[in-house]
Amino acid sequence: MIESQASSLTSLFNPRSVALIGASDNPASIGGRTLANLLDHSAYRGEVYLVNARRERIGDRPCYRSVDELPAVPEMVIVAVPADTAVPALEACGRLGVRYAIVFTSGFGEGGGEGQEYAERLRRVVADTGMRIYGPNCPGLCNVNERIGFTFSPSFRHDLRAGPIGLITQGGGLGRNVMQTMDRGVGIGLWASTGNELDLQVADFIEAMADTSGIEVIAILLEGINDGPRFVRAVQRATRRGKPIVAFKVGRSEYGSKAAQSHTASITGSAEVNSAVFRQLGVIEVDDIDELADTAWLLARAHPAPNPPDAPEPGLAVYCSSGGTTAMTADAIGLAGLTLVPFAESTTVTLRGLLPSYASIVNPIDTTTAVLADDSLIEKTMLAVCRDPGVAMVILPMALDYGEVTATIARRVAAAQTQSPVPIVPIWMSERTGEGYGILRDAGMAPMRSVSKAVKALRRWVDHGRWLASHDPEFHPAVLHAGDTPQSPARAMTESKAKTWLREAGMALPQSHAVSSRDAAMAVAQTHGIALAAKVLSADIQHKSDVGGVRLGLAGAEAVGRAWDEIHASVRQAMPQARIEGLLLEPMAPVGGLELLVGISRDPVLGPMMTVGLGGIYVEIFRDVARRMLPVSVDEAERMLRELRCYPLLAGARGQPPRDEAALARLLAQVSDIVLAQGARVAEIDLNPVWVGRVGEGAYPLDAVIVAHDVASVS
Amino acid sequence: MIESQASSLTSLFNPRSVALIGASDNPASIGGRTLANLLDHSAYRGEVYLVNARRERIGDRPCYRSVDELPAVPEMVIVAVPADTAVPALEACGRLGVRYAIVFTSGFGEGGGEGQEYAERLRRVVADTGMRIYGPNCPGLCNVNERIGFTFSPSFRHDLRAGPIGLITQGGGLGRNVMQTMDRGVGIGLWASTGNELDLQVADFIEAMADTSGIEVIAILLEGINDGPRFVRAVQRATRRGKPIVAFKVGRSEYGSKAAQSHTASITGSAEVNSAVFRQLGVIEVDDIDELADTAWLLARAHPAPNPPDAPEPGLAVYCSSGGTTAMTADAIGLAGLTLVPFAESTTVTLRGLLPSYASIVNPIDTTTAVLADDSLIEKTMLAVCRDPGVAMVILPMALDYGEVTATIARRVAAAQTQSPVPIVPIWMSERTGEGYGILRDAGMAPMRSVSKAVKALRRWVDHGRWLASHDPEFHPAVLHAGDTPQSPARAMTESKAKTWLREAGMALPQSHAVSSRDAAMAVAQTHGIALAAKVLSADIQHKSDVGGVRLGLAGAEAVGRAWDEIHASVRQAMPQARIEGLLLEPMAPVGGLELLVGISRDPVLGPMMTVGLGGIYVEIFRDVARRMLPVSVDEAERMLRELRCYPLLAGARGQPPRDEAALARLLAQVSDIVLAQGARVAEIDLNPVWVGRVGEGAYPLDAVIVAHDVASVS
Repeated sequence: MIESQASSLTSLFNPRSVALIGASDNPASIGGRTLANLLDHSAYRGEVYLVNARRERIGDRPCYRSVDELPAVPEMVIVAVPADTAVPALEACGRLGVRYAIVFTSGFGEGGGEGQEYAERLRRVVADTGMRIYGPNCPGLCNVNERIGFTFSPSFRHDLRAGPIGLITQGGGLGRNVMQTMDRGVGIGLWASTGNELDLQVADFIEAMADTSGIEVIAILLEGINDGPRFVRAVQRATRRGKPIVAFKVGRSEYGSKAAQSHTASITGSAEVNSAVFRQLGVIEVDDIDELADTAWLLARAHPAPNPPDAPEPGLAVYCSSGGTTAMTADAIGLAGLTLVPFAESTTVTLRGLLPSYASIVNPIDTTTAVLADDSLIEKTMLAVCRDPGVAMVILPMALDYGEVTATIARRVAAAQTQSPVPIVPIWMSERTGEGYGILRDAGMAPMRSVSKAVKALRRWVDHGRWLASHDPEFHPAVLHAGDTPQSPARAMTESKAKTWLREAGMALPQSHAVSSRDAAMAVAQTHGIALAAKVLSADIQHKSDVGGVRLGLAGAEAVGRAWDEIHASVRQAMPQARIEGLLLEPMAPVGGLELLVGISRDPVLGPMMTVGLGGIYVEIFRDVARRMLPVSVDEAERMLRELRCYPLLAGARGQPPRDEAALARLLAQVSDIVLAQGARVAEIDLNPVWVGRVGEGAYPLDAVIVAHDVASVS
Repeated sequence: MIESQASSLTSLFNPRSVALIGASDNPASIGGRTLANLLDHSAYRGEVYLVNARRERIGDRPCYRSVDELPAVPEMVIVAVPADTAVPALEACGRLGVRYAIVFTSGFGEGGGEGQEYAERLRRVVADTGMRIYGPNCPGLCNVNERIGFTFSPSFRHDLRAGPIGLITQGGGLGRNVMQTMDRGVGIGLWASTGNELDLQVADFIEAMADTSGIEVIAILLEGINDGPRFVRAVQRATRRGKPIVAFKVGRSEYGSKAAQSHTASITGSAEVNSAVFRQLGVIEVDDIDELADTAWLLARAHPAPNPPDAPEPGLAVYCSSGGTTAMTADAIGLAGLTLVPFAESTTVTLRGLLPSYASIVNPIDTTTAVLADDSLIEKTMLAVCRDPGVAMVILPMALDYGEVTATIARRVAAAQTQSPVPIVPIWMSERTGEGYGILRDAGMAPMRSVSKAVKALRRWVDHGRWLASHDPEFHPAVLHAGDTPQSPARAMTESKAKTWLREAGMALPQSHAVSSRDAAMAVAQTHGIALAAKVLSADIQHKSDVGGVRLGLAGAEAVGRAWDEIHASVRQAMPQARIEGLLLEPMAPVGGLELLVGISRDPVLGPMMTVGLGGIYVEIFRDVARRMLPVSVDEAERMLRELRCYPLLAGARGQPPRDEAALARLLAQVSDIVLAQGARVAEIDLNPVWVGRVGEGAYPLDAVIVAHDVASVS
């Protein structure tokens, strides 16, 4: 059903008929600008009706007093009147059976008060009539590929380079910034700017663009995801259609999320969770708006081929006529961990025959300025590089604009590009953009402007190829089928209950003993030949070691008895109000295990998330963690572990034995299973540390905190 | 002496007279282009002599057959003839007493063979006559502030915006790229491009520009430092003159350093050492050539004030008329850890009076487009922000070029700038650079082009203020007075010898016992009440745990005896050729100490360097280390420790006790003292791990490797 909705939304991009509510003969007004865009600057062939209660005609077209008086029901309306007029008009549209409304009007809840009530009335129209609302508080829609502007923006007519990129933004200003990057030569075929997202949101346009022919790459710029499941479904649909998504998400710092909230009042979930979900779903996240363009443009030129984890990375080549620029570009490529592929013998022979002896004919190539004396050499040598069997992309840094000389180079390079499918990626590093720049732009080569930014885009392009080959196309995140959160409050179980619960759910844990008296504690110690750990047992205490609630390495009954006294004394001093149920006694884990943390949290938008990372005292310093939406299979768990910077410690670094990675991966999958089996009851799981022994020794949590709803029924 | 040399070098920028060897009437030739630059495009007022054996005159000037026939000895010569002619000509110049030679000619050693011999002859001229050689293999010198071009570059006449930036590069192409960024509106007053650095090198021009009036910021672009002491001296001189240095160093990855070597054959030391030395000396390192311009331009607009470690960071403000752009810029500022300062009450009152109720008048400011209706509001509100007592800089992101509207904003902003010394930093984010861009450029506001790059520049500007307040102006690095490396080969001492040596030099270490028999080992164990560590004693083995040469936690004689057997067996299997001298027995360090590493290495260019960082298995994964040139004082050691990401573990992170930071800082200073006392004898010290106890418990190495020359005499 969602799928058919999305398909139907594509007709919003070019409806059969449209009525402009608030049409105006004042060319400076919103209504007047919209009319000019629609009638003068668009190639729209549908019926256009004008609605304005105070005019008989505008130009040679009749005006109608209201939508009720239109001779036919339009498929879409555009609303360019103030909120108090817009709301009843939209209610009428809903009754009449209008399918879409683009609402420019602001004043719907950003200011509170009356606006909130207006917004509620519009939501009712959507719910009752099925009319879809785009906006409010938005600049409209630019369907560049069909040259149709349902927008009041006077820039519409300036930014009309058709192309394969679909752009979706929440705000108008930043979206227009991306539109202006089409001056680099790659067009943006469709731009939706969703404003307040009262009904239609970024996710809906991802789905629609997934179904829109002519759009091959989707670029999104967002401050927050309003509806997690819709977003996930939309992204997965685009992936199935083979359309990569590049995203720039604002609101990753405190300043940014505060500013974003005051701007559009959108929910901004945890930035780290957002980024993890993007990575898991293959959404390519970038760090700046200019990187959105760089990366989308690169993907528009060529989609990366799926590249399995065990295959080498795509080979890059650097081609340049300046030694210093060659070195700096190769350096940036090396720092990004990308691969300059050695040339095949035949390529080397060709280059040696064409270039002077002092040129560098290994990759990176420095042709030296000798090629300027006979510029046909540029085309020949560039083609030789493009045709090298190992080369997937050629990077062409151009440090300077030397006018005609540079234009000649550009002409030769563009000529080479027409003879090879291997993308030549120019980096136009100069502040000046003269004739040479124009030649590359007009050849569709979309010059980048900064070496480091270009290399970031290349890194993302290469990584996306890896993702394409390694993701599970059948992945169905828990957020798509999660039940409602129970009404009862969530509370933490004691460690003892938590471990019992994990055991009952099938996890292998060493024996532990909950004791409620000093004597019972000492008795347990007598039956154990090895050292014990003692931990305070209290549902009121989550961070036991912070309050002196933990003693380790206790050998014998006497030591355990002393620990009983000390723990009680420390905890009573640190948290006088905590109810102490006793101690939990456990055998000490063997020395030398690696300690990680495994956690489950629930993102308000994106559902249950798993975290694994280096535990203990290092987690807050190095933040070396991997995150996933559930479910996490054993295979996915393995991939999570390989993402960690500390993975070499698991695999066996210098002097360290390899750890029981397989047991750890099983544990992750088990935790995932437990959460899924319990539906929405589990609010949080914190296994920290999880002890990971050598291969064959297993992996299990030394400490466990579970926060759950309806705890009584599960413990 | 060095200081006076540098001062004298400034006259190379504008010598009293110059002879062009290889003057030509062919305007396309090197000699012809140089002549045109000198006579037609320069405002050079000195005497110009032309040397060309095959011409009587060029234009209305006489030609001389050789330098020997010139009517007077020129202060400088420019050499634009092939190497075989250039070398004897330069020898003649040296004999005549010419002070400077700029040598464009290539073929001096890049290709080997004859070129090496030519280079050697030129070095002899320098040594014998004191003539200074600039180049060879360089494009010459551009003294833009005095409009003098000693260069063959046809671009000279296009890049003539005078200004406060001095640029020094090794390669010509990348240097010209930086010159072209003067289109952003800040001029580069002087550009030296040092080529092969046969004699004069980057350091010499840093010294010279330190002494050149009109130059306020020095930007350098280099592939390698050829002479460490010269570089250090030059940088310190610029610092004393109050001129910040911004550096982009190529060759930080394997690809880059290989390409740089094949390009100019310069020595590229360890990139990490280079970066550490830059940081220590206050050289602001950037990661891309466009960041060199961004950062230099920002410093040219305003030098940061020295900002003591305990003072708050300079307050930034964001001013924008688009909500989304405001949010994204604030976000980038937050992610960089920079400070948006809350406005004073008076500022807020002013803004509230000027802006509509729906604008955001807290920092970051979103004026909304309301200001466009009355653009005088832009000037008034911008000035209110500039005059806020907490604001040190105002960031003005401009997402779009809306033509006349944007030009109006730019005009108002430029007008505000003339009324306030607080820099307004525009970020021109659009691909289009229309009238508005030109207004900001012409107002000297040097628009940046990317939000993330602008924020990086701001971060560096703020950090430099911190450095200015915290560095030791009397710092005199060991590299400036290091003796020659001894001829004898360096070799590793045994751990026992190394520790004895550290103790003799004054370091407090726990008692350790070198034993050469199983019985002696067991006897030591009997006298110790606490657990021991046993380590193989062999000068042939550096990584003892890798060969099974370490056993820990040995309680009692029997355990020590078993360890003797096991260690001998393991080591014999892993390294059959290693000579085992016995075991080193030491008391185990108390449980729960933090383990760091402390090391000394000797950089071939920059001398002895100290490293401190997280030790054990984490060092190679997180590379969390701080580095310094020696000497390291206790104060400097404290600063090193605070640079570490793991510093919270030392200071006492969650649940962790504070560590004996003072003892660790003393240990670092002691290691520094030892190395300095030994001169060049110490090749390498590796204390890993250094155990750091709680406050009062001290800090000492558990393992010690020292590699030294003349070991016998010190052990």
